[in-house]
Formats: sequence, C-alpha cells, structure tokens
Amino acid sequence: MKQRPGISHPSASSSRMGHVWLVGAGPGDPELLTLRAVRVLAQADLVLYDALLDPRVLAYAPRAQRFCVGKRAGKASVAQETTHALMIRAARRGKRVVRLKAGDPFVLGRGGEEALALGDAGIPVEIVPGLSSAIAGPQAAGIPVTHRAVAQGFLVVSAVPAEAFHRIVPATPPVGLTVVVLMGLAARAAISAGLTARGWSASHPAAVVLGAHTARQWSWTGTLGDLATLELPADRADLPGILVLGDVAHLGPRIASATSGLSPSNVEQRHDYA
Amino acid sequence: MKQRPGISHPSASSSRMGHVWLVGAGPGDPELLTLRAVRVLAQADLVLYDALLDPRVLAYAPRAQRFCVGKRAGKASVAQETTHALMIRAARRGKRVVRLKAGDPFVLGRGGEEALALGDAGIPVEIVPGLSSAIAGPQAAGIPVTHRAVAQGFLVVSAVPAEAFHRIVPATPPVGLTVVVLMGLAARAAISAGLTARGWSASHPAAVVLGAHTARQWSWTGTLGDLATLELPADRADLPGILVLGDVAHLGPRIASATSGLSPSNVEQRHDYA
Repeated sequence: MKQRPGISHPSASSSRMGHVWLVGAGPGDPELLTLRAVRVLAQADLVLYDALLDPRVLAYAPRAQRFCVGKRAGKASVAQETTHALMIRAARRGKRVVRLKAGDPFVLGRGGEEALALGDAGIPVEIVPGLSSAIAGPQAAGIPVTHRAVAQGFLVVSAVPAEAFHRIVPATPPVGLTVVVLMGLAARAAISAGLTARGWSASHPAAVVLGAHTARQWSWTGTLGDLATLELPADRADLPGILVLGDVAHLGPRIASATSGLSPSNVEQRHDYA
Repeated sequence: MKQRPGISHPSASSSRMGHVWLVGAGPGDPELLTLRAVRVLAQADLVLYDALLDPRVLAYAPRAQRFCVGKRAGKASVAQETTHALMIRAARRGKRVVRLKAGDPFVLGRGGEEALALGDAGIPVEIVPGLSSAIAGPQAAGIPVTHRAVAQGFLVVSAVPAEAFHRIVPATPPVGLTVVVLMGLAARAAISAGLTARGWSASHPAAVVLGAHTARQWSWTGTLGDLATLELPADRADLPGILVLGDVAHLGPRIASATSGLSPSNVEQRHDYA
C-alpha cells in the first residue's frame, strides 16, 4: 500500500515537519472531488488555492486558513516563487498544507514544478489527481472527447502562448482527432482566423463550454468560422471556458438530451448549426 | 442545481422506471473515486463492470448484483449490444443500474454510445466522470503530461486499431507534445518500429506504467528504441498499461523521488537511461 504520511495524525505539531499535498479539485461541482481530496482537505491547516477554483470546494477544509494564490487574465497574481515559498515556510512550521488547483495538478497546472521545488526543499509532498476540465468540461455538455467511428484520440493544448498552440496543433487536422483548447476563449477570434489561415475548414465543428459542472454552465455548438464572432454571455465572463474542435462537438446536444443530470433547466445551450 | 433523479430514494420500486449511471471508476485506487461515484454505487441494484476494473472498487456497491461485461485482449467478451440490452432491461424493471468503467466513460470507453442507446430506449441516464488513466496513469509514476518549458500539450490515443493510431499521431512529433498511448503495451514493438520508420528518433524519451495507482504498480523509463525489446514483468501481465512518449517521461523519476505516496517501497521503477 502507498505511504500516506501525516494523514493518520489528526493535528499538526509545530515540532515536526509538515507536509504538502498538491490536490486537483476537479472542474467545479464538489461531488466530483475524490475521496482522497476530501480526506486531505478535512485535515488541512492551510489551503493555498487558485482564483479559478469553485468556492464550494473550500467548504471541505473547515479548519484551514485559506489563501488565494491564483492568477487570472488581467488581474494581479502571486508569483510562482512566492507560492513555493509560502508552501515551504508553512510546511517547515509543521503545517499540513493543501495546494488546491482547479482540474488536475498535472494538466497545465504547474504541479510538476511545485513538486520539484518542494522536493528540492526537503518537504514531503504527495500529488492527489483531480478530474481535468479538459475531459470533464466537454462531458458536462454531453461531448465525449472520443467516440467510436468519430474520434479515436484527443489533443489537449493551452491557447497561451500562441506560439506553442500553433506548434502543437496540426496544420491539417487528422480525421478522428478532437482538439480541446484550454484558456482559449479570450483568443477565440485569433484561433479561428489562425487555424483557417493554416488550412482548417471554417465548417470544422466547434463547441464552447463555460462553467462546466456548475449551476451557471453555458454551452454553444457551431463551427470554427462562427467561433470568430461568437458573443459569450456577459454575465458569465468570469467562468472558465473550454473550446472543443472536432466532430464530437455535434454529439454534445444529442448526448445531453439523452442524459439527465447533464441538462438541468438552468443550464443554457445554444446550437448554431442545422 | 443538477437534477439527480433516483438518488434521493433509498430503494428501487419495480413499478417505476429505473435509471442508469455511466460511472468512471478512475485508475484503480478506490480513494480516487469521486464522491458522486461512491453515492451512486452505494445505492445500486446492479453493477455491470469492465474486466479491467480494480476489484476493490466493487466493495462500494454492497447491495448490488455484480456482473462483468468487460472484455480484454485475447478473452471472450460480452457484445456491446448485449450490454445495452442488459442495462435497458434492468432499468425497465425499475432497477438502479451502474455501468462501471475503468477510468473515464468518455475516454475510449464507449460511454457516448451507451448514453445514446439508453436515450433512444427512453431510459434516464446520467454520466459520472472518473479520473482517466491517460492523465492519472503517468502521474502515478511522477510524470506530468504537461510541464512548463517541456510540454505544453498532450495527445491521447489508442494503439488499436493501428490505422487510427498512425493517422492521429503526427509523423514528426512537435516539440513540446506528450503522446499518451492507451492499449499500447502488447503492440510496443510495432509502435517502436512504426514510429521510427515514420521519422521519430529512436532516442525519443518513453515511459511505461503498469497497474498505476495499485499496489502492484511498475514503471519503466527509457527510449522509443528500447521500447521495442522491453520485457514486461511476467507476474504483472494482467495489469493495464500506459505508454508515454515525450520529454516529460524523464521527469518521472525526479518527481517520483520528490513525492511521497508516489513511490511506495513495493512499487518497482526501472530507468534505462543515463
């Protein structure tokens, strides 16, 4: 069995080394936390969380001090080195520290960097994976990233920086590939223009999901061409969004209408194709 | 809030329609189940599960009949249509049915097909996402699928069928792309030969993780060239395996040694590079 240091002791002692857990909180809905995440949150002394984190998740850490270290577009952020220093200092004081990230720590979440920094500082660290919004985000709108005879693989990429996006996304999309773009909504016009300029069809199916697995979820299905001029609802501009490119986008409305729990009445869906 | 039909009623009544949940069980360790998965398992009347499923997960469904419908390489399997028919018949008899899949239902798991078949039959269905071994599998060996300045995106693909694999995997791997191959271990010699014939370097970093997040986990790090002749431990041939191609493979041993809980003493690691 795995070592699970610390968790069996209900209170931290300042006379011994603390511990850091890098925990993935999943896409939003606290019901999608893992049992392991719930257990470590319940015993945390300090939670350092991202700005994109669903606030309902923090209720699972009732005895912890909570501090937001996340950044989001256009707002000031805590430097990565500061986050490392905060974790290391607290752990050296014997604290149980949870570094809580939206999604999964290893999907565009800098979890690897933080694990290495903690390891270099001699701090015990454990990684607790979480549901990545790269998969669970499309799923919330009924979109499977793979589907027999439609998509046999999927590519997950950040829209930022644009150089990496265009290096990694193929100029000619192979049949059967779904592309899931994280942090891509602000750049949707540039993504649409850039990919069509490189040879993608303007009729390539596209979908957007905002606030997946939250009560404010909003989704849209259309084409890569339409994406350029898509207006997002102003009242949901604060929600994290996922962009999906590929034939699976058009399965979303069909599967969402087949499934309860995926299309609650207050979840908006728009479809811009026939 | 989402509709969650059925769950509030503790017992199924044969006079009303049942319900099906398509549930992702994650990679193995029951601690990585979601709260939602635990709740629906606890109330299930019938669990239809895959052969690759970690048996410890079934203990969370103490009151359910359990039936294996999964297939694995080289063994007879229940036809997909039979699985659909079993779910539909049980739901029409008022049963709470959990279709329990290893990993996530929408990652090469035919969850979309099953949702559509159930929707067509008028059966209420909900999808409960799970941790995909495409991400949590490498993580168990310390490998982040993305890592700043190393990989900005990742591609997940099945090795089967080989035609789809070679259609989707780029002939020249872009810098910064991680490729995660599911169901690829049996075909590792063909994958190594096929990719190097198409232009991949034999020195491209590679890693294999067997039985991720189980007590029998085994991992290896080396190169695409070495992969061709890699001998897997005979006593772990029954375990599902993940193949990782990309520079992140070499981060695995570093991050695993930095993290407790990732490298328990009974987890084997082999590194075939300097």
